[in-house]
Amino acid sequence: MAKTRPAAKASNGKMTYYFSKTKTEGKGLSKELLGGKGLNLAEMTSIGLPVPPGFTITTEVCDGYYKSGKKLPAGLMDEVRKNVGMLEKELGKKFGDDKSPLLVSVRSGAAMSMPGMMNTILNLGLNDVSTAGLANATQNERFAYDAYRRLIDMFGDVVMGVDHEHFDHAFGKIKAKYKVKADTDVPAEGLIELCAAYKEIFRKYTGKDFPQDPYTQLEAAVEAVFKSWMGAKAVTYREVENIRGLLGTAVNVQSMVYGNMGDDSGTGVAFTRDPNTGKNEFFGEFLVNAQGEDVVAGIRTPQPVAEMPKWNKAIHKQLLEIKDILEQHYTDMQDIEFTIEKGTLFMLQTRNGKRTGTAAVKMAVDMVKEKLIDEKKAIRRIPAGDLSQLLLPSLDTKALEDAREKKLVLTIGLPASPGAAVGKLTFTAEEAVERAASGERVILCRKETSPEDVAGMHSAAGILTSTGGMTSHAAVVARGWGRCCVVGAGEMTIDEKAKKMTIKGKTYSGNDIITINGTTGEVFAGAMPTMEPKLGGDFATVMKWSDKYRTLGIRTNADSPTDAQRAREFGAEGIGLCRTEHMFFGEDRIAAMREMILATEVDARKTALAKLLPFQREDFVGIFTAMKGLPVTVRLLDPPLHEFLPHDAKTQEELGKQMGLKPAVIKARVAQLHESNPMLGHRGCRLSVTYPEILEMQVRAIIEAAIICKGKKIDAKPEIMIPLVGTAVELKYLKELTQKTIDEVIAEKKFKGSLDVLIGTMIEIPRAALTADEIAEHAQFFSFGTNDLTQMTFGFSRDDINSFLPDYLRKDLLTADPFQTLDQSGVGQLVEMGVQKGRKTNKDLKVGICGEHGGDPASVDFCHRAGLNYVSCSPFRVPIARLAAAQAAIKHAK
Amino acid sequence: MAKTRPAAKASNGKMTYYFSKTKTEGKGLSKELLGGKGLNLAEMTSIGLPVPPGFTITTEVCDGYYKSGKKLPAGLMDEVRKNVGMLEKELGKKFGDDKSPLLVSVRSGAAMSMPGMMNTILNLGLNDVSTAGLANATQNERFAYDAYRRLIDMFGDVVMGVDHEHFDHAFGKIKAKYKVKADTDVPAEGLIELCAAYKEIFRKYTGKDFPQDPYTQLEAAVEAVFKSWMGAKAVTYREVENIRGLLGTAVNVQSMVYGNMGDDSGTGVAFTRDPNTGKNEFFGEFLVNAQGEDVVAGIRTPQPVAEMPKWNKAIHKQLLEIKDILEQHYTDMQDIEFTIEKGTLFMLQTRNGKRTGTAAVKMAVDMVKEKLIDEKKAIRRIPAGDLSQLLLPSLDTKALEDAREKKLVLTIGLPASPGAAVGKLTFTAEEAVERAASGERVILCRKETSPEDVAGMHSAAGILTSTGGMTSHAAVVARGWGRCCVVGAGEMTIDEKAKKMTIKGKTYSGNDIITINGTTGEVFAGAMPTMEPKLGGDFATVMKWSDKYRTLGIRTNADSPTDAQRAREFGAEGIGLCRTEHMFFGEDRIAAMREMILATEVDARKTALAKLLPFQREDFVGIFTAMKGLPVTVRLLDPPLHEFLPHDAKTQEELGKQMGLKPAVIKARVAQLHESNPMLGHRGCRLSVTYPEILEMQVRAIIEAAIICKGKKIDAKPEIMIPLVGTAVELKYLKELTQKTIDEVIAEKKFKGSLDVLIGTMIEIPRAALTADEIAEHAQFFSFGTNDLTQMTFGFSRDDINSFLPDYLRKDLLTADPFQTLDQSGVGQLVEMGVQKGRKTNKDLKVGICGEHGGDPASVDFCHRAGLNYVSCSPFRVPIARLAAAQAAIKHAK
Repeated sequence: MAKTRPAAKASNGKMTYYFSKTKTEGKGLSKELLGGKGLNLAEMTSIGLPVPPGFTITTEVCDGYYKSGKKLPAGLMDEVRKNVGMLEKELGKKFGDDKSPLLVSVRSGAAMSMPGMMNTILNLGLNDVSTAGLANATQNERFAYDAYRRLIDMFGDVVMGVDHEHFDHAFGKIKAKYKVKADTDVPAEGLIELCAAYKEIFRKYTGKDFPQDPYTQLEAAVEAVFKSWMGAKAVTYREVENIRGLLGTAVNVQSMVYGNMGDDSGTGVAFTRDPNTGKNEFFGEFLVNAQGEDVVAGIRTPQPVAEMPKWNKAIHKQLLEIKDILEQHYTDMQDIEFTIEKGTLFMLQTRNGKRTGTAAVKMAVDMVKEKLIDEKKAIRRIPAGDLSQLLLPSLDTKALEDAREKKLVLTIGLPASPGAAVGKLTFTAEEAVERAASGERVILCRKETSPEDVAGMHSAAGILTSTGGMTSHAAVVARGWGRCCVVGAGEMTIDEKAKKMTIKGKTYSGNDIITINGTTGEVFAGAMPTMEPKLGGDFATVMKWSDKYRTLGIRTNADSPTDAQRAREFGAEGIGLCRTEHMFFGEDRIAAMREMILATEVDARKTALAKLLPFQREDFVGIFTAMKGLPVTVRLLDPPLHEFLPHDAKTQEELGKQMGLKPAVIKARVAQLHESNPMLGHRGCRLSVTYPEILEMQVRAIIEAAIICKGKKIDAKPEIMIPLVGTAVELKYLKELTQKTIDEVIAEKKFKGSLDVLIGTMIEIPRAALTADEIAEHAQFFSFGTNDLTQMTFGFSRDDINSFLPDYLRKDLLTADPFQTLDQSGVGQLVEMGVQKGRKTNKDLKVGICGEHGGDPASVDFCHRAGLNYVSCSPFRVPIARLAAAQAAIKHAK
Repeated sequence: MAKTRPAAKASNGKMTYYFSKTKTEGKGLSKELLGGKGLNLAEMTSIGLPVPPGFTITTEVCDGYYKSGKKLPAGLMDEVRKNVGMLEKELGKKFGDDKSPLLVSVRSGAAMSMPGMMNTILNLGLNDVSTAGLANATQNERFAYDAYRRLIDMFGDVVMGVDHEHFDHAFGKIKAKYKVKADTDVPAEGLIELCAAYKEIFRKYTGKDFPQDPYTQLEAAVEAVFKSWMGAKAVTYREVENIRGLLGTAVNVQSMVYGNMGDDSGTGVAFTRDPNTGKNEFFGEFLVNAQGEDVVAGIRTPQPVAEMPKWNKAIHKQLLEIKDILEQHYTDMQDIEFTIEKGTLFMLQTRNGKRTGTAAVKMAVDMVKEKLIDEKKAIRRIPAGDLSQLLLPSLDTKALEDAREKKLVLTIGLPASPGAAVGKLTFTAEEAVERAASGERVILCRKETSPEDVAGMHSAAGILTSTGGMTSHAAVVARGWGRCCVVGAGEMTIDEKAKKMTIKGKTYSGNDIITINGTTGEVFAGAMPTMEPKLGGDFATVMKWSDKYRTLGIRTNADSPTDAQRAREFGAEGIGLCRTEHMFFGEDRIAAMREMILATEVDARKTALAKLLPFQREDFVGIFTAMKGLPVTVRLLDPPLHEFLPHDAKTQEELGKQMGLKPAVIKARVAQLHESNPMLGHRGCRLSVTYPEILEMQVRAIIEAAIICKGKKIDAKPEIMIPLVGTAVELKYLKELTQKTIDEVIAEKKFKGSLDVLIGTMIEIPRAALTADEIAEHAQFFSFGTNDLTQMTFGFSRDDINSFLPDYLRKDLLTADPFQTLDQSGVGQLVEMGVQKGRKTNKDLKVGICGEHGGDPASVDFCHRAGLNYVSCSPFRVPIARLAAAQAAIKHAK
């Protein structure tokens, strides 16, 4: 579902909110107004954490900026100056001062986290005069000019659009001149020269001098942040993440603290618990003598926070105390950024931390044990969709041991996001998107990832980088999606242009398959077998809680005993949709199926169907056995018959030989069965109207199988579902035929036991929902086939939607793919109508849903509200549906 | 619409209703209970007309017969015996008597006329004894044995299933023996011999003696009539005529009178007015010394009733008096059957007469003049759909004159049903069905037609027979359908087996085309040009009345100035649907269209669109000019783009040459555009979302055209209709784009006059109807596209429905093709919802319909009830819609 936030509450024209030890204006206000970062800075300040003071410009200002044709509102800069004045007073510094200059950071911060997607400018307030002042004040000329050159670079790049490469090139020249390799080795005089060169570049590419007035800098920076809200990266991210309805970004202007003022300084990012496993262990990384972006960008590989006591025990202790304060305050795991300036800790940011599904489950269960939250809160906190990560395959243990023994591990990186992924190598995001679109499974292999790579990362089965740590861009993004990811595999050299990567002298290109193990960081050549996850422990606890609170039943869509068994293990309480068509494609069956379709007389058709009967019966015996004691809803044949015939000349010829028919006869029948719009054609129950003998065979197979099971003391509970019904008389006719066949088989087999067979229908045609009152008179149950219902209600062919869906999402004409998430206002009306009208004439009507939406949390919520009896989804989504159903029950409890 | 009758009212178990001068039980009861024939016999008796007494067995008995597994209900024969007893007493005759035997006819008669579709048995009550008695009583041995041989033949054929040919064969042998050709020339002794031979045949093929007990005969005959209700002929007829929901047939047992008792006897059928032209002239035919079936079957060619005074002036006068009595009683034209037995007239049947559309119009207007009925009744009486017959083409006058002058008339038959038909010859009904199905226009050419031929007659463009009169089977059926028909073309010899016909020594076969003129009876070789009808006189009167009473507006669907002009002449008050896609297929346009589709960049697409702009503008100037002062609703491009590209390799190659592209490029684009379900694919407004420049070009063309017209003082009233809208945001986006383009063009052209352009949408996707309240906020009008709405609401592809629709109609799972007649309970719900919800948020919303249903009378009635502002239909259906709208307004007036 689209992550839509309510609009920010009107703030009576107030555009800025100050935060410091002495005054915190934004406390208790909303993320929608201040952005997540802004609100949390205010909150942290208010609970006494050491936060550098600053102020937040609201999202309303951003909204106003766009609404007025990209103009900053009148009065904004007056408010800004007032706030800067307060900062100056509080810190004893002055903006642009030659003695004790006030420096600020300018950062974006929307109501929902969009890491790295928008602009940030640091060290703002430096100019020729204040830089000299800063050098004097800190007694550190190198530091001051390093900060200045960073500002010119960032401001030039971010605010003025000067290509960063020009600055890089100049830096390279300076490094060459001073014969050093690392940036940090350039001496102060080199940096002074560099600042002059940077200003020259700035003038060359912008036609203007680098602005010396700090308020000019600040105004331009604020506007640049607002502009970045609609930048391509940010727009794409919101599209991928399905974030809608936000006003814009807030801007946080905060006094600078420096982690790069020497070896007693540093910076880090951390999670209050392990976001990967969920363990209650302070988890993060820090870099000594560095600025924050160095950690996030993954340029230098940082140290784990566990190592910090070796460097500064007191800070580590203080951080652990802050961890507890934050968790008590937010009752959730926090993702923090901090900086140590000359031995003093400053908190720069906190927010609820992203986590893997596994971690979400473990944290929720642990926090209940810790009495931090209750069961209901725990249930509501776990993003139901993320449970799929717990159900992801991992590498097959045996194969993994073998591979290790045989030393097939190419290299080991950091285990950034769990699971296993197998795919061909791709080296650019674009290529990943293209190849994935054409059906390949690919691993995106990059030196490091950046926001530009987001689309490619989303398309890839897994992500592998050669640099970066556990909190690098690649790691954070991949974890958020539950995408398998290995980072910092430093032995790997990537040649993006040549589309190759080399590990230990061996080269791999775009056609090579690799396997990555996100749980261990291992990288293997070739495809390795994967295995199903084992579920237990905390997962089982969450499932137990879910079952306690949910009121919806959960069934599964399964067509084979194996799937049925797996779904049952996942907690399915029955089969909501057992498709029978797949059963006809087996090599031993397709011949009889084709014989049936090619028959021109009913007798020949019956002869062919008689050959299919034993297969069908056997299938149902298997499924009934796997689901013993639980209901199994069998849908009668649904697809158009032409799907079972070969369409190419060669196979038609072979078929002709087999069947003693001329290829022309087969070709003619294929042509005769061809349809312009098969979706709306001769399929579903329409086949049974034309060929009642198909229905008779299938019903016979179901009942014979049930009787066989009963004979073996296996409690078969078949429910026969007639698909694609559009009118009551259609269902009545087929229901009578079904009942007649059931009665005949029972009589014929002289079965004396009890065998209740429900007969019901799919509601998947709009007309069926509209006339559900009439239809319900002939049905014991309804199952909403929301795939087809969505196709017909929208007039969207699922097979063809990709030609225009991207445009619709991009232009905000749709908030989500309606085949993923049920369209509640359109299709949902028909579902509600179907339920209400159906129950009006048949109060005992059982109602479920068996479209793909049955496993989508937002849709499950809708199904709960619509009063359905159960949802049915694919086996792997059963746990998600159980949790989502509990969330819905808790959310909507009266 | 299905002709559905309400169920017969329960008659408290009474199974028979007697009628005679002394006692008329069935007077004032319903057709549903007594059938049309039974009710009218009771009515005629009650108003003093000379009707042979008898009784009617109700349709409820027929229903009970089928419900109890084909068993006659207990007590039925007791009631029958009681009624026969009354007849015996009244007539002084006795059933099976050897002196004065009572003879009866046993005839079917359902609530709706099904001429010739069910069984009839005459002369029932004859056996060896009573035949001798009859011979004695009538002093006419020949007559008695002729009646007996007819009974044995009919009873054997109809009741016992003995092939009629066996009897024919025996008759042939007798005629040979007596060396005569005509049946009537066989002497009495020959007929006595024949009766013996017939009884022998009866015994041989049934294993039983011909039943001598008259009650045994009667019971078997009643059951045979009931059985014929479900006979293949009757079932097919009801299917073709769309007659549903009847209980069954009644059975009329009536004392026999004989038209074949000599030259003072005769029989005839007549209409109280001319059913072909509507003239107030007694119209019909009679045969001297013949039984009724001889007229209907067309075996002998009868004389017109106008000739009757030459034969019997008194009878003719009596008939003219009866004509007036009947018309006063029924206030409608009657179709009667009569028999003269030895100079005494007996009325055997009356019913409202079938008539051509032309006749219906003339009669209705005349009867208003005669003050027999009022305008409202006149309007309601004309079957609106039959108006199409007045709009049928006739042969081009000039060509007709030429053909006559050049003596190209092959032969002249009777003008049985007006209009003109051109087609290839077919000689069997089966062949007509097959060839018509494969797209050929055929003329069904038969010696005479019989109920077995109904399907073939329906498939044919016209019907031509060599025997039979104006009231023969072919004539009656063809007139009912408005199918062009010429009968009794006696110069024609047909060889059904050789599939040939010969006229004046020249032979014509299945590949020869002929033209028949149903208005004159002329038959021509070859295809002759046809011309449009001229409308005026009574037709204009009916249209004037219609416009007086109707409240619905009537628009037309027209894509060209010619169509627009024609529709305007037919009374259209605007264009409700002007499709723009056809405009792109012109030879001068398709190239630019293809260039646009093959363009990969927006600029190239715009260049191609710029080439199309002048064409489009010119089209709209033409249409606006034709419709000056009236609104023109232009629908923007609707079909998927692949429809404009060639699909065969050769044309692709040519196109490649033209466009300087490799055929592979074109093939690739065709493949890229291919869709699994184009109906649900990238079409309609989805094209404008992806390619806004197409919308911009079309809107520009519309507005530029309107401005050009305004400059010429032509009042253009464009309404822009956005197709296939599913969501409010989609319409909002495109409406804004449309309005922006309108504003731009107006500004650019410096147009200062007034130009109101409405912007609205089609409601053709179920979701649009469901969310009409949201959509109406952005629309000035709705037009229900009920073709697509039906496709999606039912999940029926119109292109593919023929694979299962016949089964659905046959099995009564649908009562009509929902693309012909709006499905009121399903699709209709969405229309009503769309109207109500739309007006809720936009009270000024104009609402119309532009699917094919706009010209279907039952659907027009629905649209009236649903509160639409107008219906729009094809030009030729505009008069039908006007009349249907008036009928609806009168019917539903409060």
